[in-house]
Amino acid sequence: MVEVDVKKLLERAQKPSLIAPQLHKFYEGKLQVMPKVPVRTLDDFSIWYTPGVAAACRKIQENPDLYSFEYTNRWNYVAVVSDGTRVLGLGDIGPLAAMPVMEGKAILFKYLGGVDAFPLCVNTKDPDKLIEFLQLIEPSFGGINLEDIEKPKCFYVLEKAREKLNIPVWHDDQQGTATVILAAVINALKFVGKKLSEAKIALIGAGAANIKTADVLELAGAKPGNMILVDSKGILNQSRRDILEKENDPWKWNWALKSNAEGVTGGIPEALKGADVCIAASKPGPGVIKKEWIKGMADDAIVLACANPIPEIWPWEAKEAGARIVCTGRSDFPNQVNNSLGFPAIFRGVLDVKAKTVTDEMCVAAAYALANYAERKGLREDYILPTMEEWEVYVEEAVACALKSIEQGVARVKLSRDELWERASRIISEARKSLEALWKAGLIRPPPSEEELLSMKPF
Amino acid sequence: MVEVDVKKLLERAQKPSLIAPQLHKFYEGKLQVMPKVPVRTLDDFSIWYTPGVAAACRKIQENPDLYSFEYTNRWNYVAVVSDGTRVLGLGDIGPLAAMPVMEGKAILFKYLGGVDAFPLCVNTKDPDKLIEFLQLIEPSFGGINLEDIEKPKCFYVLEKAREKLNIPVWHDDQQGTATVILAAVINALKFVGKKLSEAKIALIGAGAANIKTADVLELAGAKPGNMILVDSKGILNQSRRDILEKENDPWKWNWALKSNAEGVTGGIPEALKGADVCIAASKPGPGVIKKEWIKGMADDAIVLACANPIPEIWPWEAKEAGARIVCTGRSDFPNQVNNSLGFPAIFRGVLDVKAKTVTDEMCVAAAYALANYAERKGLREDYILPTMEEWEVYVEEAVACALKSIEQGVARVKLSRDELWERASRIISEARKSLEALWKAGLIRPPPSEEELLSMKPF
Repeated sequence: MVEVDVKKLLERAQKPSLIAPQLHKFYEGKLQVMPKVPVRTLDDFSIWYTPGVAAACRKIQENPDLYSFEYTNRWNYVAVVSDGTRVLGLGDIGPLAAMPVMEGKAILFKYLGGVDAFPLCVNTKDPDKLIEFLQLIEPSFGGINLEDIEKPKCFYVLEKAREKLNIPVWHDDQQGTATVILAAVINALKFVGKKLSEAKIALIGAGAANIKTADVLELAGAKPGNMILVDSKGILNQSRRDILEKENDPWKWNWALKSNAEGVTGGIPEALKGADVCIAASKPGPGVIKKEWIKGMADDAIVLACANPIPEIWPWEAKEAGARIVCTGRSDFPNQVNNSLGFPAIFRGVLDVKAKTVTDEMCVAAAYALANYAERKGLREDYILPTMEEWEVYVEEAVACALKSIEQGVARVKLSRDELWERASRIISEARKSLEALWKAGLIRPPPSEEELLSMKPF
Repeated sequence: MVEVDVKKLLERAQKPSLIAPQLHKFYEGKLQVMPKVPVRTLDDFSIWYTPGVAAACRKIQENPDLYSFEYTNRWNYVAVVSDGTRVLGLGDIGPLAAMPVMEGKAILFKYLGGVDAFPLCVNTKDPDKLIEFLQLIEPSFGGINLEDIEKPKCFYVLEKAREKLNIPVWHDDQQGTATVILAAVINALKFVGKKLSEAKIALIGAGAANIKTADVLELAGAKPGNMILVDSKGILNQSRRDILEKENDPWKWNWALKSNAEGVTGGIPEALKGADVCIAASKPGPGVIKKEWIKGMADDAIVLACANPIPEIWPWEAKEAGARIVCTGRSDFPNQVNNSLGFPAIFRGVLDVKAKTVTDEMCVAAAYALANYAERKGLREDYILPTMEEWEVYVEEAVACALKSIEQGVARVKLSRDELWERASRIISEARKSLEALWKAGLIRPPPSEEELLSMKPF
């Protein structure tokens, strides 16, 4: 493999950061709110507002739980909620500075899933206040997407909110990442002819993403005892009482108890020894995982190095060390493990059946929809997952989640596979066409050139 | 004056209610969320989302209070917040059933003021929880519009929220209504050649609207002692200790103390005796105010009968009884006192200077902008206020509010009159054009015909 020029790669990774502030300021933010009903004359407001609207309100009173999803846009509203405590790699930057990420998430929701997501950055760090907040906004939304909330608070908030709310609550840094990782693992194992139920899996990093990844791997058939998790202090096992006593993290402790049947101790090299799969979701590299450690893995090793912007090990290094398949979080390498392959479609699916919750089983269903799509196209070492360009996969994933909701008895309405397919593809395609119509009409202005942007004075 | 066929009028008032539920269901709600930045290829997401977005977040960290308004759409987001306790004439129907009204409000905000309003119907009736909720969402919004909250809770929530939040908090049933009523009173008095500072004013109804109307009338120059307020128990005066002791309403009690210098007692007829202006915001008529009571008013009497859907007295009855100018809340009579003339423009103005609050002085400035616009066009008995069709008035009102914000030292940024004018007209016109572009592209479907709608089975 030709070694890539690392300096160029780093520059390329840097480029968006050099023009993003100017572009954010040029457009004064990224999101807007728009009517979706006609206003031909002002008389139409006598339907959409007083006096006519009162009749729609009275209709909802007849059956608030169901009709609120039919007479308002609640069926398609998702709140993107963050307290700004763990934003990207930036840490606890607070709710005001977190907003650009949440607006970005909302445009991904719309463009890829046709979902009307609205960003709510909230002014509290208290987990119980956050849960109460979600209960307060429940009547206005069909789903909740938690984002960039520090752990272990994020586990607690998700668990409690799911108990208390009758709409899907999702934490994308957990379920979203886990879903796409699972899809990659399923296909990579298939490609090299190994079975998930027999695979030895090393999870490097034991944060929100990898703890949930372990959950869904188990649900999909991996053996908990065959998994080894490593955090910054070393391999998780039953002697790691610091996890309970210092970190106060029962979710991680649960995995310390049930993983690692052989009782391996040590750090990353020991965890990787003989492993079929390495799933790293830890900290930006390179050099977090060394070539010699990859050499210690089993034949046809599978390496997911998901840290951003720089993976824990450069893909060519992993390949040189013997890895057969390498996935990263970056769009400029093959096999991008990208959350955007998950959440827009999964929400499309649960919203289309007005589901009361979203479960880990739906994550598994979505992962198989992703995996099967790529398999039908033909797996290759450099094509283990679909890409964001393959928009039909979103429809397949949405349908899979919707059908799983119906099967699990948590759907408020039941549609056939064909109806679900038609609905999801129409909604997603209309979302893109709407953006295109605004662009063509000049209502979204063309951006300044890259040269102009780079020459703009710092604000 | 030709007497209108009452039966036909009532039918006409009824018609929107017969098709509104079907139309709400046909469109599955009224609002959507839309990107306002280009997505030409998926590479653009490296600017709008990771990795580029992190640079915009870091920029906001440098000065969160100001830059959150520049690098995100916070400068144009308004939360339309209701607990659903006093929705239209429907009473306490709860947050789920209140949503169609809040979505309707949001489309008025966008269409008339270019404001990105988002509806949040919340699951609590506790005023302190509501205030805490507003503090929680403050980082995400440039303003708050409270809506359809019962009194006296609404006074308390508004007062406390204004103390605690650094963005404009508005209760449309108070300030909004008061602003438009003040504009009508200013012009009507001008038309008949009387002065506000000398006018005797009877306020029929002492709810959220008329208490705030009394406040802004005083601020605009009316004498508190020349006003008489009447509630369901009679004229307010210093002997009405039930207001404090039973209703627990210090805002109303304040007016019981300072209004009615002559100590008039009795009910509506006594309040109207010799009055120059009657402002009724009480309960649907007809017959709440009788012809003979209007006869007791001063010459050139001015009657605002604002109840919906039927005014407290029919306009032709008021005219027959000697009223010179009659205003109602209905669009099918002249001189409509319509909140939609106020809130979209007032928020446009305060948002354009990123104001820290909205004051009663801005209501007065907005009222004068409305009044002066109509005066320049030429006042007539049947043209005391601008209509919603006259969209330039929204720009004038917005500029007046923005300039008042700057004058009062609560604006985060200062723009010139010309800059404000250009900005407000561009934003409002782009909002309308965007809706038109979606309609023309077929992305907002044409509605079924009226016949089809009426023949639809009840859902």
